[in-house]
Amino acid sequence: MSTEKVEIFDTTLRDGEQVPGCKLDTKQKLVIAERLDELGVDIIEAGFPISSPGDFQSVNEISKLVKNARVCGLTRAVKKDIEVAAAALKAAKRPRIHTGIGTSDSHIRYKFNATQDEIIERAIAAVSYAKTFVEDVEFYAEDAGRTDNEFLAKVCEAVVSAGATVLNIPDTTGYCLPEEYGAKMRYLKENVKGIHKATLSCHCHNDLGLATANSIEGVIHGARQIECTINGLGERAGNTALEEVVMVLRQHPYLNLDTNINTRLLYDTSQMVSHLMGMPVQPNKAIVGANAFAHSSGIHQDGVIKQRETYEIIDPAEVGVTESSIVLTARSGRAALAYRAKKVGYELTKVQLDTVYVEFLKFADRKKEIEDNDIHEIISKTDIGIKAVS
Amino acid sequence: MSTEKVEIFDTTLRDGEQVPGCKLDTKQKLVIAERLDELGVDIIEAGFPISSPGDFQSVNEISKLVKNARVCGLTRAVKKDIEVAAAALKAAKRPRIHTGIGTSDSHIRYKFNATQDEIIERAIAAVSYAKTFVEDVEFYAEDAGRTDNEFLAKVCEAVVSAGATVLNIPDTTGYCLPEEYGAKMRYLKENVKGIHKATLSCHCHNDLGLATANSIEGVIHGARQIECTINGLGERAGNTALEEVVMVLRQHPYLNLDTNINTRLLYDTSQMVSHLMGMPVQPNKAIVGANAFAHSSGIHQDGVIKQRETYEIIDPAEVGVTESSIVLTARSGRAALAYRAKKVGYELTKVQLDTVYVEFLKFADRKKEIEDNDIHEIISKTDIGIKAVS
Repeated sequence: MSTEKVEIFDTTLRDGEQVPGCKLDTKQKLVIAERLDELGVDIIEAGFPISSPGDFQSVNEISKLVKNARVCGLTRAVKKDIEVAAAALKAAKRPRIHTGIGTSDSHIRYKFNATQDEIIERAIAAVSYAKTFVEDVEFYAEDAGRTDNEFLAKVCEAVVSAGATVLNIPDTTGYCLPEEYGAKMRYLKENVKGIHKATLSCHCHNDLGLATANSIEGVIHGARQIECTINGLGERAGNTALEEVVMVLRQHPYLNLDTNINTRLLYDTSQMVSHLMGMPVQPNKAIVGANAFAHSSGIHQDGVIKQRETYEIIDPAEVGVTESSIVLTARSGRAALAYRAKKVGYELTKVQLDTVYVEFLKFADRKKEIEDNDIHEIISKTDIGIKAVS
Repeated sequence: MSTEKVEIFDTTLRDGEQVPGCKLDTKQKLVIAERLDELGVDIIEAGFPISSPGDFQSVNEISKLVKNARVCGLTRAVKKDIEVAAAALKAAKRPRIHTGIGTSDSHIRYKFNATQDEIIERAIAAVSYAKTFVEDVEFYAEDAGRTDNEFLAKVCEAVVSAGATVLNIPDTTGYCLPEEYGAKMRYLKENVKGIHKATLSCHCHNDLGLATANSIEGVIHGARQIECTINGLGERAGNTALEEVVMVLRQHPYLNLDTNINTRLLYDTSQMVSHLMGMPVQPNKAIVGANAFAHSSGIHQDGVIKQRETYEIIDPAEVGVTESSIVLTARSGRAALAYRAKKVGYELTKVQLDTVYVEFLKFADRKKEIEDNDIHEIISKTDIGIKAVS
């Protein structure tokens, strides 16, 4: 079976940038857009042009800058939104308009005060109007995660007939379990007439910590695009983290699904976005956190020193991290101490190591982390005449 | 169908505390242990007693302090480890020893340089020895995620015969996909003789962002204990986040699985652990991040103001967050502006709102976040005579 491609739709500059505190100016957005293009994302959602003059300008300038990726602008199912998005995207080599409307009972009743038939009419009208400006029109069925599958299929069928090229099935509130989200994709794949003319897309939120798993289940069951952001930024608990879905597919080749992402740029890109947006990445963040490749317990360190694959499934270099670190703390064992001591110039015998280790534990119970300098101090304290090899 | 209980095994003080920079002193550990007991966790893994004198002391004092939860100490499958753990746990009302050994080919070959039969012998010996000290003995099959199911079942059967009360099936490297981890649990449930005498336990790592999904799949397929940490702390990208699995089960009552956790303490507990360990929680962290309940885009804010459930699946009060915030940025719409303006005393007409909104967008394009003070300034700038209602 040959490997199929999953397209990566990055929405860091739209769903990510709308987060409290994440606002960027146009210049900063251009820096990120250029990097995303280099990283190999297939689609850059550059903004929501009607939302403010600044956002219009950004989408406009990103459209001129980007060389390879499609550039996409968000709209509501509203004529004016679509016109403004089309204008902002004018200079793009491969423009995409992303339009849509809420389809769950809750959205139809409370947000639109409408009926299901009216929603379908508005969806068709929006897609048809967008098609008068661009060829590539993605439709989102907002809150699809809580939309009844039968009605969702009806909406999808209608907009595919109207020319939609991509069907975005968002789990807007982050509620779905992986099995449920996967089953939804399978249902659409099997029940929407004309589905072969469009690409199904996963757009998951992380409110319950399930965005990555849901997106992966989505592509296992027929979707071929994942919408995601660097560092999982986005509304509330954020979107699917780009770095996580990309590495899940890369690490499970038997799924026969892969992306175009140059994974060696992941760590740098994560750092760039974190700094420009002022949004810290927690140390225990998967793939790009400061500790993602750090081993500190004695049991783990011993294993990694003997054979890296014992505790590490990803070679850190593959995601642009230069070395997995062996961090010394009070939970470290003799193997790690010997390893680090050797790095700073001491070849300890087994007997010497026993003595140094006792001193090391006393020291480490007082201090969070042992640095190279501390090792010299610890060894000199043992007073058994150990000298560094010069 | 009646709801079955899933036990929560918290390992913040063991798998969390061994992380670079997370080291705590005994006093800090006691504060956290007391809070975990209050939170309603079923088992507190208090440390790895043989690893250092400080850790021994902590397990010892936590054993004296904790009122309700079982207190657990980690060991390798080594006599001395087990003796030291038993001594540290002496004062616990309900002590548990957690012992085990690696079972994957990689661990057996590179870490232990042993054969499968030797591993089974050592596993039986460790459990039997631990049983001479305490009734409740949990066995971990390290790297179970990459262990062949048939051999894993053989190991489990052997240790259940030796008296193990809990079988911990760790995905040590965080490699498994949810379907795979769930299938592993189902296999053990169906193929281990005497499995009714023991509880299967999930212990997942988040290297690929799948720890929460894997744990949930585990309990759907027969496990009845989840090992987790506050804020998902732990080796590398961390462990399963306690707050996430608890809320997934609470939000999906049709699974008929629930925990004893008092969810109203989740946010405070997260903050306490973050401060004591000096480990920041990223703003987009599920359940406990600063933005987890913040709405900033115009579309979302409008929806939430009309009806909270449109975009919010969890009432923030349920996890101890006092109010979901409506944050004003350049992506906010008229509804949010009117809502916040009203909160600071302005009842804007539709026409007034249009004028104020234009001024607001100019302001917001320059400033990341609009505070209450800014609203007064924006409104006075419009110069159309709007006065606050006193």
